[in-house]
Amino acid sequence: MLKRIILLLIVPLFMLSGCYYGNTGADAERPEYVVAIHGGAGWITPDRYSDEEEAAARAKMNEALEAAEAVLKNKGHAVEAVEAAINILEDSPIFNAGKGAVLTADGTVEMDASIMNGKDEQAGAIAGVKHVKNPISAARLVMEKSKHVMLSGEGADKYAAENGLDTVPNHYFITEKRAKNYNKNHPDKEPIHKFGTVGCVALDSEGNLAAGTSTGGMADKEYGRIGDSPIIGAGTYANNETVAVSATGHGEYFIRFSVARDIHSMVEYNRWTVERAADFIIHRKLKYYDVNGGVIVMDRNGKIAMPFNTPGMYRGFIKSTGERDVKLYGEEK
Amino acid sequence: MLKRIILLLIVPLFMLSGCYYGNTGADAERPEYVVAIHGGAGWITPDRYSDEEEAAARAKMNEALEAAEAVLKNKGHAVEAVEAAINILEDSPIFNAGKGAVLTADGTVEMDASIMNGKDEQAGAIAGVKHVKNPISAARLVMEKSKHVMLSGEGADKYAAENGLDTVPNHYFITEKRAKNYNKNHPDKEPIHKFGTVGCVALDSEGNLAAGTSTGGMADKEYGRIGDSPIIGAGTYANNETVAVSATGHGEYFIRFSVARDIHSMVEYNRWTVERAADFIIHRKLKYYDVNGGVIVMDRNGKIAMPFNTPGMYRGFIKSTGERDVKLYGEEK
Repeated sequence: MLKRIILLLIVPLFMLSGCYYGNTGADAERPEYVVAIHGGAGWITPDRYSDEEEAAARAKMNEALEAAEAVLKNKGHAVEAVEAAINILEDSPIFNAGKGAVLTADGTVEMDASIMNGKDEQAGAIAGVKHVKNPISAARLVMEKSKHVMLSGEGADKYAAENGLDTVPNHYFITEKRAKNYNKNHPDKEPIHKFGTVGCVALDSEGNLAAGTSTGGMADKEYGRIGDSPIIGAGTYANNETVAVSATGHGEYFIRFSVARDIHSMVEYNRWTVERAADFIIHRKLKYYDVNGGVIVMDRNGKIAMPFNTPGMYRGFIKSTGERDVKLYGEEK
Repeated sequence: MLKRIILLLIVPLFMLSGCYYGNTGADAERPEYVVAIHGGAGWITPDRYSDEEEAAARAKMNEALEAAEAVLKNKGHAVEAVEAAINILEDSPIFNAGKGAVLTADGTVEMDASIMNGKDEQAGAIAGVKHVKNPISAARLVMEKSKHVMLSGEGADKYAAENGLDTVPNHYFITEKRAKNYNKNHPDKEPIHKFGTVGCVALDSEGNLAAGTSTGGMADKEYGRIGDSPIIGAGTYANNETVAVSATGHGEYFIRFSVARDIHSMVEYNRWTVERAADFIIHRKLKYYDVNGGVIVMDRNGKIAMPFNTPGMYRGFIKSTGERDVKLYGEEK
């Protein structure tokens, strides 16, 4: 009985501490649109990049953000903005997604992607594709045209081709840099210091949230390994009532902990802010397990959190208010 | 300000209503062990089965439960019990998993499975395998021996074979009944009235929870479709602090709604009972979307919920207390 009374007293206090941190907040001012992207987290430090490489990465991220902004400014849907931004990152050899994806143990490229529409919780994903030029577009196709959520392997490539998406030979994706790195004895081989994966979250003028993630996966992967990027609830999640999330990091843990869905649940059930939920996952839970990675999270008012527990994460955003930023390193303010 | 005050007053009351329904409850008496299984939900009604078919299904479910019980009685781990029960359901032609799996559009069998250990949130999954005799054993192998969580396609079969699991030609899985049903013009063809999938949740004497799910997927599936069964957080989830869950139903929705993980989150964050969380998902959320299916859920005290929104679901349990039951139809009390 005493236990029950104590519980009755403590639980509301505990819950109020959650309120103090703020709920998703219908009182905040919502910008007309917001878009945020990431290009992977890892040991991203200034000494690893030439000025040219750094400038090229920043320019490409700005280009991706501006492509999404163009969609959003024209009252386009958040899903369309996410696809537009990710297409540019996929077409660039800089990122581990689409062209420039890392190689599997077999020396081929096998890509995963997923996308989710927060308006109706529709989702689409493809895993292990080798030919569709833009995996995120294939994920969107699965979401919008098929009765399924997830297609895999040759079947997924076939579905994309049958429905008119561009397909290319596998070698289209393989850049000189990745090929050097595949050859274990190549003098220029460098250790992988970054979790690939690109992602985007967006809020449109109708208040719709969307999230997408695209990746070449883990370098030297074998046995048809699937990471978190194509798993709804792990690497990607979106719901207009709560958040849009795209993750990057050690995918196996992101699957086990349903990272994207858990951030949603902390916001939905605990009424935590996106900062609190994202920080808890990245700086507490993953840190506890010594797991590296980061997330980009946006709430329904366009509030952004982009925590990572590695030295750096490619990241950036544009808001309709004119605010914008692109960063690579941890120390950049 | 007034809004904030109202919120401050209402939120604790709302939360207290959750307390009233009870949290996962450290006060309940925990049996030494508990195991529960399902064999799929659907239009399972007495008129669809001969007495012999019904008796065979009940006998096989009892056999599976007793295999798990034998493990648990000998202080075996919950993961081992889950595998033992599911192996028997996979080896039986009655269920849509392993032998007796439904056919894809190509006339082959492609199976998915996943397993999770609630002790350390380790997980393993395989998708689209065609040769490993017991997909749930392959999922356990991935969990325990590989650095990955999810393997797919030929690679997953290869990994299983290299690590000593039994592999068989694809036709081993194809029963006469499924072959008839594949042939669209066969006079005995009957409409599919049941979501296949088998699953098991178990609590062992050490207080460990585990969950596993195995399936042949959707009949006539194409393009390497992956359903919820191999997706950690969708078809399967286990955590010693909260619940073990295995789901069956229209997989696409179970992925979009992260059904297994959401039940965990409602128990973890809202402190709901397993009955309340499972009923909410099956009878409210899925029902709202007109989605059919069911789940078996067990909490850390061995309390079981097995709701479904279809006319029937193959289901059963055994507790160390001697309580046991096996049911097929909705109206069975």
